[in-house]
Amino acid sequence: MFKDKFSEGIISAKQFDREDIEYILKKGKEMIQIKNSNLLQGKILATLFFEPSTRTRLSFESAMYRLGGSVIGFHSEDVSSIKKGESIADTIRTVENYSDCIAMRHSLEGAARMASKFAKIPIINAGSGSGEHPTQALLDLLTITEEIGELDGLNIGIMGDLKYGRTVHSLSILLSNFDVNIYFVSPEILRMRNRDKDFLQQQQVKYKEITKYRKILNILDVLYITRIQKERFVDIEEYEKLKDFYIFREDDLENTKDNFRLLHPLPRVTEISPNVDISKKAIYFKQTYYGIPMRKAILSELMTE
Amino acid sequence: MFKDKFSEGIISAKQFDREDIEYILKKGKEMIQIKNSNLLQGKILATLFFEPSTRTRLSFESAMYRLGGSVIGFHSEDVSSIKKGESIADTIRTVENYSDCIAMRHSLEGAARMASKFAKIPIINAGSGSGEHPTQALLDLLTITEEIGELDGLNIGIMGDLKYGRTVHSLSILLSNFDVNIYFVSPEILRMRNRDKDFLQQQQVKYKEITKYRKILNILDVLYITRIQKERFVDIEEYEKLKDFYIFREDDLENTKDNFRLLHPLPRVTEISPNVDISKKAIYFKQTYYGIPMRKAILSELMTE
Amino acid sequence: MFKDKFSEGIISAKQFDREDIEYILKKGKEMIQIKNSNLLQGKILATLFFEPSTRTRLSFESAMYRLGGSVIGFHSEDVSSIKKGESIADTIRTVENYSDCIAMRHSLEGAARMASKFAKIPIINAGSGSGEHPTQALLDLLTITEEIGELDGLNIGIMGDLKYGRTVHSLSILLSNFDVNIYFVSPEILRMRNRDKDFLQQQQVKYKEITKYRKILNILDVLYITRIQKERFVDIEEYEKLKDFYIFREDDLENTKDNFRLLHPLPRVTEISPNVDISKKAIYFKQTYYGIPMRKAILSELMTE
Repeated sequence: MFKDKFSEGIISAKQFDREDIEYILKKGKEMIQIKNSNLLQGKILATLFFEPSTRTRLSFESAMYRLGGSVIGFHSEDVSSIKKGESIADTIRTVENYSDCIAMRHSLEGAARMASKFAKIPIINAGSGSGEHPTQALLDLLTITEEIGELDGLNIGIMGDLKYGRTVHSLSILLSNFDVNIYFVSPEILRMRNRDKDFLQQQQVKYKEITKYRKILNILDVLYITRIQKERFVDIEEYEKLKDFYIFREDDLENTKDNFRLLHPLPRVTEISPNVDISKKAIYFKQTYYGIPMRKAILSELMTE
Repeated sequence: MFKDKFSEGIISAKQFDREDIEYILKKGKEMIQIKNSNLLQGKILATLFFEPSTRTRLSFESAMYRLGGSVIGFHSEDVSSIKKGESIADTIRTVENYSDCIAMRHSLEGAARMASKFAKIPIINAGSGSGEHPTQALLDLLTITEEIGELDGLNIGIMGDLKYGRTVHSLSILLSNFDVNIYFVSPEILRMRNRDKDFLQQQQVKYKEITKYRKILNILDVLYITRIQKERFVDIEEYEKLKDFYIFREDDLENTKDNFRLLHPLPRVTEISPNVDISKKAIYFKQTYYGIPMRKAILSELMTE
Repeated sequence: MFKDKFSEGIISAKQFDREDIEYILKKGKEMIQIKNSNLLQGKILATLFFEPSTRTRLSFESAMYRLGGSVIGFHSEDVSSIKKGESIADTIRTVENYSDCIAMRHSLEGAARMASKFAKIPIINAGSGSGEHPTQALLDLLTITEEIGELDGLNIGIMGDLKYGRTVHSLSILLSNFDVNIYFVSPEILRMRNRDKDFLQQQQVKYKEITKYRKILNILDVLYITRIQKERFVDIEEYEKLKDFYIFREDDLENTKDNFRLLHPLPRVTEISPNVDISKKAIYFKQTYYGIPMRKAILSELMTE
């Protein structure tokens, strides 16, 4: 049972096997039909964003309100008790007494996992440093299955900052449960980390690492682009060199299949040209729309008995 | 129909003709009677305050809660996705998938208008730079009609920073639909901008520009004072010279008519002496009270079918 | 009647006599049984935190949501209207028109009291500088009575920063209504202030001031430890000298009675060693749990007719 397996929360995409993914995608699909409900009336979600966020936080909050629940939380590095010297463990053991579930973002990779060790209520990892962002990956899959179709057999390009990009780590892990061909497209210096590749190899995922995307555009069903993340670079000059490494333009669309779709977890900086937006192949804003039903599915699984 | 005409939202006072104003004032008046309702249950308002605000944001949020709705949002220049380089258009095309209406404040004049071009849901301009603040002007009119009476025939003084003050811009535009006499009182350097005066002349509004308010006090029905806005001045020395240009004192009240009323959009700094507060003629705190029914009227018009 | 006596709100622990405390403790106890209700449906709490807070703000918000109410507010020194030069009095006279009760925290001791002079709705002092924090003290008493038993006859140690610690000021004032023995444990320089001791003497409270806690550990029923508050020190070197003055360790527990309990208002820094946490005698996280029923009791008393 999903509820039992995930009773401690959702920390990593590695918790999910194919059956779990198919189950939660089905629940997400159902939530598309139910705009509002009172399923979580009286329940409280705590959104603890030690690292600020707009999209993810508002998406969780909207999902919670659509289910009739309430939200408390903070969203800033500038958290008062943290400034006073409090540990994450203490914060969690306090906030769990105020709420029924905690969605947290933190700049450290292990933060959500550690929190789940201390908490009596479910923890949702809403982004942990350069590590993972599993609920983003789940909404990405909901977007693909709703807008394109079955995952098995798809050719999926994942492009951009594959080293620091937490969304692409979680996405590739989830995809490893399906029969897909993955093309990792990045500058040499931003390749997937070895530990992530080791995992994929172990899972017998078919993937290739390349630097140029144009030559594979015509075979792709999905291209998932991510931002080069300024905030992860220690050396700003290195960032400046890489930030415009990829710019997907309108004419790139001409070389793509009819049912090719372009995804992006957003925010987007320069890596997709704005005049691509109007194409029916560009579905990154629709992707944010699927965040609500997917997070409604997740929240209702974790908080109902 | 109001709902049809304003389906894209409320961006400028110029959208309103006399009939629209009378309609929404009537709705605001009705909302005074209905403290709480479930009219907007299940609906979500997003308050996107790129420029911080206390009063306006809390007023919108309170109005939304009084109608049974929910609120998501951010309120700081320090918005994470913006810091990551996201454009307003992208923010709007994301948040519209999380909410049913967006109230936004931004330091740039054209921001709300641009947002409404991209959004599928209504946008409310909750203050755009030195430009406009139409819902403030609507609550100002509700205050005047409830506390004084019919607008036609009133002598209305508008005093303070008429150049940068967005509330006075929206207020004069709304008043241009009525048969009023306006006295614009300001230091020479903070006069109404030409584009605003051109509009008023075109609308055949009777107005005068003066520098001293004491000589017209005895004929006024309303004096609307605004703060000299430190944050709009490039030259801080110029601000220092002007900040105490007007200080309305207790003894000024002696020269006013019995039904004279003093309004101010707040926050107030030094331009009204605190011992004026206790006079029944000082209704600037009551004015904040009228913000709730007026915003309830606006939100319910924009979000119900 | 509690409601009548506290119609202006809860500003100081000095408002409470023994009967009031027993009444609100009984109400708090009742609230433990009622997880969710609709008692405050349609009501709005404003949380105005001029000085930031995590625990207290989230605790009030959670309590309000558990009662079916809504919350508006701000939480930062960086409040926009304050930066624009607004006085507390003006802020209060505005926000009272948006809400049914205001919980406020401010760095100045007299702020909440002053606010209550201006407000037509109840004010709750959620921490005023180094002054008081009465609702924390009420939840402390609920914790003690639920986890240990009757207050009369208890030996209670209060240790740490007794000079600047607002929670210990309010706690000792409340305890002065009961037949308890208090041991104030602090470095010489952080002793209780004379005005607080004068009050306790007047109330004929039995108390002693000591510097070392180990010799009284075996007679204590309760030890209430507080953090040395870095933010209250003008001289950072003095803080550095004092910050590790007390570190309560696991082996300290061996010298305590069976029903000895360790409390702390949190956040905790170094004054309690983390390996104390697992002891059943350490109840500081449970203490945060009791914050919800106590604040539900307070909010429902102040906001229902």
